[in-house]
Amino acid sequence: MASSIRQTVKQIVETSDTWAGKTFDIFIQLLIFASLADFCTRTLPNLDPSLRSGLQVFEVVAVTIFTIEYSLRVAVADRPHRYMFSFYGLIDLVAILPFYVSLGIDLRALRAVRFFRLFQMFKLMRYSNAVKRYMRALRDIREELIVFTFWAFMVLFFASVGIYYFEGDSQPEAFGSIFHCMWWAIVTLTTVGYGDVYPVTVGGKLFTAVILLVGLGFVAVPTGLFASALTKESS
Amino acid sequence: MASSIRQTVKQIVETSDTWAGKTFDIFIQLLIFASLADFCTRTLPNLDPSLRSGLQVFEVVAVTIFTIEYSLRVAVADRPHRYMFSFYGLIDLVAILPFYVSLGIDLRALRAVRFFRLFQMFKLMRYSNAVKRYMRALRDIREELIVFTFWAFMVLFFASVGIYYFEGDSQPEAFGSIFHCMWWAIVTLTTVGYGDVYPVTVGGKLFTAVILLVGLGFVAVPTGLFASALTKESS
Amino acid sequence: MASSIRQTVKQIVETSDTWAGKTFDIFIQLLIFASLADFCTRTLPNLDPSLRSGLQVFEVVAVTIFTIEYSLRVAVADRPHRYMFSFYGLIDLVAILPFYVSLGIDLRALRAVRFFRLFQMFKLMRYSNAVKRYMRALRDIREELIVFTFWAFMVLFFASVGIYYFEGDSQPEAFGSIFHCMWWAIVTLTTVGYGDVYPVTVGGKLFTAVILLVGLGFVAVPTGLFASALTKESS
Amino acid sequence: MASSIRQTVKQIVETSDTWAGKTFDIFIQLLIFASLADFCTRTLPNLDPSLRSGLQVFEVVAVTIFTIEYSLRVAVADRPHRYMFSFYGLIDLVAILPFYVSLGIDLRALRAVRFFRLFQMFKLMRYSNAVKRYMRALRDIREELIVFTFWAFMVLFFASVGIYYFEGDSQPEAFGSIFHCMWWAIVTLTTVGYGDVYPVTVGGKLFTAVILLVGLGFVAVPTGLFASALTKESS
Repeated sequence: MASSIRQTVKQIVETSDTWAGKTFDIFIQLLIFASLADFCTRTLPNLDPSLRSGLQVFEVVAVTIFTIEYSLRVAVADRPHRYMFSFYGLIDLVAILPFYVSLGIDLRALRAVRFFRLFQMFKLMRYSNAVKRYMRALRDIREELIVFTFWAFMVLFFASVGIYYFEGDSQPEAFGSIFHCMWWAIVTLTTVGYGDVYPVTVGGKLFTAVILLVGLGFVAVPTGLFASALTKESS
Repeated sequence: MASSIRQTVKQIVETSDTWAGKTFDIFIQLLIFASLADFCTRTLPNLDPSLRSGLQVFEVVAVTIFTIEYSLRVAVADRPHRYMFSFYGLIDLVAILPFYVSLGIDLRALRAVRFFRLFQMFKLMRYSNAVKRYMRALRDIREELIVFTFWAFMVLFFASVGIYYFEGDSQPEAFGSIFHCMWWAIVTLTTVGYGDVYPVTVGGKLFTAVILLVGLGFVAVPTGLFASALTKESS
Repeated sequence: MASSIRQTVKQIVETSDTWAGKTFDIFIQLLIFASLADFCTRTLPNLDPSLRSGLQVFEVVAVTIFTIEYSLRVAVADRPHRYMFSFYGLIDLVAILPFYVSLGIDLRALRAVRFFRLFQMFKLMRYSNAVKRYMRALRDIREELIVFTFWAFMVLFFASVGIYYFEGDSQPEAFGSIFHCMWWAIVTLTTVGYGDVYPVTVGGKLFTAVILLVGLGFVAVPTGLFASALTKESS
Repeated sequence: MASSIRQTVKQIVETSDTWAGKTFDIFIQLLIFASLADFCTRTLPNLDPSLRSGLQVFEVVAVTIFTIEYSLRVAVADRPHRYMFSFYGLIDLVAILPFYVSLGIDLRALRAVRFFRLFQMFKLMRYSNAVKRYMRALRDIREELIVFTFWAFMVLFFASVGIYYFEGDSQPEAFGSIFHCMWWAIVTLTTVGYGDVYPVTVGGKLFTAVILLVGLGFVAVPTGLFASALTKESS
């Protein structure tokens, strides 16, 4: 009898074949989204106090439901320990733990630990299957990606050192050390170009021009790698 | 006899095989462009009053012709209702409706409803055939695009939350809540980088650097998907 | 005898098989580069007067040589008229004509007509063969490019109209008419993002976010098309 | 006996098959990273004097080890001269030479010569094998890349000349000569868009819009080339 209930709960919690299982899945997903929206909204300054307390009540409700869900998953798992130390098991735990931890300590610390609630989002990945195709494409170009990453860091480093020699003296605020220059290098090579730091000397501008023409590979190489891997994968 | 006229009109309006049909098509297309240009020009401030009234007269003429076109299309259609509720039928209606609606209400409201006139542009798609190839390529990568969109939103969300913790205190104007930070995240990850908001703390800059290197996929992944789908499609 | 000289000159001017022909080609190419450098340098403000007159002398020498080259090409061509009205024949003429035209008219007009001297650069293309492969790839994706261009203009137009309604009232300087907004739209969708104009209202920012996510195709689509065409071409 | 020691050292220095050889390799790699970090840290302004002298001591130690490594590599090489004039041999030398040179001359010159220490980074490439695949892909598209580079310079040049005529008069500071305009052109066409220079006239904005739409190829073409080459390579 107890085993029959456990079997029913297991079917609802772990699979989404039945009507109940599907409803449970969709309910949890919607609750994750609502919980994330709650999380974002509470960072708004000048929030109405009554709305703020409403959102706090909602958080308690949401965490309670996530705790029940976690307990059920542990209870119905064939090997509870295996689930608890699996990728999703740890995420399920990390998503609820900060709430309980924060009850014991002072309120300012709340802010930092609540960051982990975001891991709830990963739960949604459980419901997606197409992720695997991306993973396979990524695995195919693993070695090339590592070499590209190394090359990217080398270009970043050379760009930082070069601009330091050209701009270091004329703009000590923005290009005062190689570490300062790295901020410029990353913003420039990814073509974001905020405009908070940019070269002003002739030498610095010439150097930037050369680096930018070489740095087109920053976007071209990973894109080409990905296109190639996906073409191979799908054919 | 009436049926013969209807047949001739049908041929002109619905097909572009004959000389008359082709002329009709080109005339309607040119009128759409002229109507859109009229629409844009009238938003110019400090417009000469006589030019403004001239543009208003042109609008009346254009809408009248579009109304006649719509009536003819309804009249000659084999199943009028089917045309009226088809994609292009609705666009044809939406493109002329705001003009008549705006006559009855106050002038300020004009501005908002006129937005729908833009749907005229979609009419041009009726004349293009190559669109289908794109549609097929898009359908091939439908699932991958959905996963990518989800991933993109996740990166956007993580970036927003992260930068909120690093910059929220030092720049309350620009990074005051997670919703504020999302503006920064979208402008940064698409590499637009207006420069209206950017991190100033060391932690915020380091975090941005990491997010940007991961976020290269923001451009690389859809490009790779598209290149792969088009390569498969054309071979 | 005259025919023999003509034959030798023809070989030097039109082909680059012999030592003399190769030298002639390289000399003309170097002169084009020198002439362009001369052109750029003379736009520098606060230029030393003696250097400026030296550059002017060089221009006279260069144009004289280009004139001799053009005369020789006309003289040795099997069908002079055919060469004169060919693509390169017209460029050769357009590259030297402004100099002679400017002698007769006032000096201010010089500036505008000299622009055509840049067509000299196209001459260099004569010496390149690999251009053809690009041309073939471009021809393969001709139709897709036209549809993409149409789509790009549609997105640009929608973005401009949309932002006009959101930002037109709060930033009349930058978003005062749909034409003003088009500048914002092109700078944003190509991800340049100078930062001279950007939305400040919540509605405008939300609209920009949506447009940017859709507008990723602005870079993704032509890249994908090109990658696909080149893959097909090379296999 | 001496020959046996030489054989053992050769195995350690030149190969990484044995435990000792692998350890030696990893040790040298870590020392390169540490040396680069030392180099960057010493550019920080307001550095603690005791930390600065510590970093200087570390530099002496690191260069001593690199010198020993270089001597060993020369000693055990089958043909010492061949190693000394090989790519890595020259880098090994260039990485240590500046230190010794700088001891003799005045301290200000130190700064410039130390730049060559960065070539140490190239040493890491010795340990990577996947680089070859990139090299092969690059060789496959060598000719296309040259043509693209030429085209890119032509677009840059045309953009610079065009914007000079449109913006030269209204913004003499930023667009005062064609060389000034080239800075704008490179920042715009690579879509970095710092925002330090941008067109303000209607003509200049229209010209920029046209150049940007054509200039999408700046990113699209090399990406497409790379994607195509990698697809061919991997299949």
